[in-house]
Amino acid sequence: MTPPAPDGLDGTVLVVGTGLIGTSVALALRRAGVDVLLSDVDDVTLRVAHEAGAGRPLQTADRPAVVIVAVPPRHASQVLAAASRDFPEATLTDVTSVKQGVLAEAVSLGADPTRLVGGHPMAGREVSGTAGARADLLDDRLWVVTPLPSSGIEHVRAVHRLATACGAYPVEMGAADHDTAVALVSHTPQILSSVLAAQLIDADPDHVRIAGQGLRDMTRIAASNVPMWSDILTANPGPVADVLDGVVGELQRTVLALREMAETVGTGDGTAVVT
Amino acid sequence: MTPPAPDGLDGTVLVVGTGLIGTSVALALRRAGVDVLLSDVDDVTLRVAHEAGAGRPLQTADRPAVVIVAVPPRHASQVLAAASRDFPEATLTDVTSVKQGVLAEAVSLGADPTRLVGGHPMAGREVSGTAGARADLLDDRLWVVTPLPSSGIEHVRAVHRLATACGAYPVEMGAADHDTAVALVSHTPQILSSVLAAQLIDADPDHVRIAGQGLRDMTRIAASNVPMWSDILTANPGPVADVLDGVVGELQRTVLALREMAETVGTGDGTAVVT
Repeated sequence: MTPPAPDGLDGTVLVVGTGLIGTSVALALRRAGVDVLLSDVDDVTLRVAHEAGAGRPLQTADRPAVVIVAVPPRHASQVLAAASRDFPEATLTDVTSVKQGVLAEAVSLGADPTRLVGGHPMAGREVSGTAGARADLLDDRLWVVTPLPSSGIEHVRAVHRLATACGAYPVEMGAADHDTAVALVSHTPQILSSVLAAQLIDADPDHVRIAGQGLRDMTRIAASNVPMWSDILTANPGPVADVLDGVVGELQRTVLALREMAETVGTGDGTAVVT
Repeated sequence: MTPPAPDGLDGTVLVVGTGLIGTSVALALRRAGVDVLLSDVDDVTLRVAHEAGAGRPLQTADRPAVVIVAVPPRHASQVLAAASRDFPEATLTDVTSVKQGVLAEAVSLGADPTRLVGGHPMAGREVSGTAGARADLLDDRLWVVTPLPSSGIEHVRAVHRLATACGAYPVEMGAADHDTAVALVSHTPQILSSVLAAQLIDADPDHVRIAGQGLRDMTRIAASNVPMWSDILTANPGPVADVLDGVVGELQRTVLALREMAETVGTGDGTAVVT
């Protein structure tokens, strides 16, 4: 077949979903001089993004060369499949944080597997929504590109160019590899941060107020969008459970060692306890 | 008895142990115009602190009004007891991160319980040693002051003034309360950071390189002085094990929930897996 968008970003880009990441991508593309179309199920959100200079609302006659789906993870595969039908020549990509499930399901729902290329810009903020979007959010960040074995090279290239136009560095990786990697470097830290933050909820406020920068760093990401994170973990349960098993084992060994130490009080080695 | 140092920092302060915290305290006191004496078992370390302007080496004839013990946790109680004998009128305090054990043991080794007042400046750096010391390390930090029931009010006051002279905010708390608090806000975050960092050691480097700021924040404090942290945990095993038990329970529930999700793949709810 003829490559439908050989020049990638020489064409128009449609951003579906004008939340934090979608609007940031759109602003970054506008900054790079790209013609950007916007769509969102929420008219108010769409208007805010439009008025922020992120692009113009999609019209029926528009034919984008690239469609970026930046909707919540649970809707991404359906929206990719719909975009595949609506724009039968466009490169299709997304920004979902977990790749295997969304891509397989998009294909099963009818997305063209030759035009579909997964993507995951490694950027975010503790705030969410259009108002948190920034044109520089993706600057110097990695953007993982996960082609399917069926993805046409011209579509893979278009997604690389998209990432570069946003100021990010594209890194290619298989979808399964990506999901294993993010379980370790993103999802597990997120869970540990949230579990640690949960320990503070019922704690004595006088105890919590002496906390320093260490605790602040360790609980910062716990403030992230909870429904979004719930979606992300639901989509990557196996790899995350595998990493957490390692963490739990290590912590259980630590507790055992501490309990043994606690029994050797008053031995003159510095573990005496005031009674 | 006559208050031996009613004016606290109007007298000379001796800092025993010129590592990161001791030298930072000494530099902060010098900045405040206090006469500071220094001692350390290591002559080179002592000379570095002296040449950095932290104070002058202790001479036999010196009679400090306040002695701050800033040696590694395992030596603190012995050094407090020795200081109590050497300077029979001085206020005695320390900067150890765990308070019950060190204070009880210092008293059992002969430290005067009326002149002894525990202290814990809530500041630190991932680097250790004299070279990492800074006069502003304690600025705007909390300095927990833990008097014994036997501590004379004039000595408690002297430690408050010491903290204030260093730019910190003194906060009074019982030793047991302090140890429970730091188990939650300091020691548990430290262990979680280290356990998370340990998961990265055997991981695929291609996976680790896509890490973002979240993982960096969560593992920053894992880079801290390992022997010092081992000492700290050895001195506070019970309270830390109690908090970790809560964390482990929460993580085990999370793993169970994830394993259940992983079994419901391919159900059209976004959890399909590419096979």
